[in-house]
Amino acid sequence: MNTLLASPDEVEAVFYDAIARADLMALMSVWADDEDIVCIHPTGQRLSGAAAIRDSWRSIFANNPRLKVRLSRVVRWNSMLLAVHNVVETLYIGDEQKAHGPMLATNVFQRGASGWRLLAHHSSTAADRDLADRRVAGERQEDAPRTLH
Amino acid sequence: MNTLLASPDEVEAVFYDAIARADLMALMSVWADDEDIVCIHPTGQRLSGAAAIRDSWRSIFANNPRLKVRLSRVVRWNSMLLAVHNVVETLYIGDEQKAHGPMLATNVFQRGASGWRLLAHHSSTAADRDLADRRVAGERQEDAPRTLH
Repeated sequence: MNTLLASPDEVEAVFYDAIARADLMALMSVWADDEDIVCIHPTGQRLSGAAAIRDSWRSIFANNPRLKVRLSRVVRWNSMLLAVHNVVETLYIGDEQKAHGPMLATNVFQRGASGWRLLAHHSSTAADRDLADRRVAGERQEDAPRTLH
Repeated sequence: MNTLLASPDEVEAVFYDAIARADLMALMSVWADDEDIVCIHPTGQRLSGAAAIRDSWRSIFANNPRLKVRLSRVVRWNSMLLAVHNVVETLYIGDEQKAHGPMLATNVFQRGASGWRLLAHHSSTAADRDLADRRVAGERQEDAPRTLH
């Protein structure tokens, strides 16, 4: 996919949508063409570079084909060429109504010739379960889950 | 302290130096004047705003007066007004030669009227102990621990 992603929000929406659909190609399409891209999983694994990141998500999708991530408490810092979001991720596995997590993520975006792309995704487990988004899974909300505009 | 910090590297150096000296005032001086500043500790606590961040570090310093953090594997993304570093933190407590951690951190910086400041510090435990910086504590190295220039 070489769609031009016009904002960090769009990159983030495609990223979490690809996770929900276990679509490895779509997931990898959002990353910047930068050898130093970093993905840190809640397990504490730190992956650097597209090949290592692709392998880790292939393995996650093989074990958990349906992971719906709902974002809340999004803090955004934007500039012309770099943007950073800090978010709370609430995780739903398969058809379970029960929320997992919450997790905390810092997503870093870069604007290049082909629009915005993801430079880094740093995710870790939250201590405070009250951070979790307690809205019923499937219910439509203003900001989560994100849809492409 | 209202020193003009001329780069994200300087902000990071002052931040970790303040931790090493358990200097709460110096530590707080590096944060941006932004109500959404975020500090995520390896415990999974997510603190937002200067008051909550100050309280958490006061409590950390009360329990661990000397925490030396050595940085390695620093990845830097810089732009005019925002910058992001992803680093591996190796922790030394008191006079112990034994390394703790390693931890993974994403540090986000913003340039404002008074130079560069810290917007977010997201730290979490690394799964891979081999990431730790195994150099002898106290040995001088090119990039860690950082000194102000």
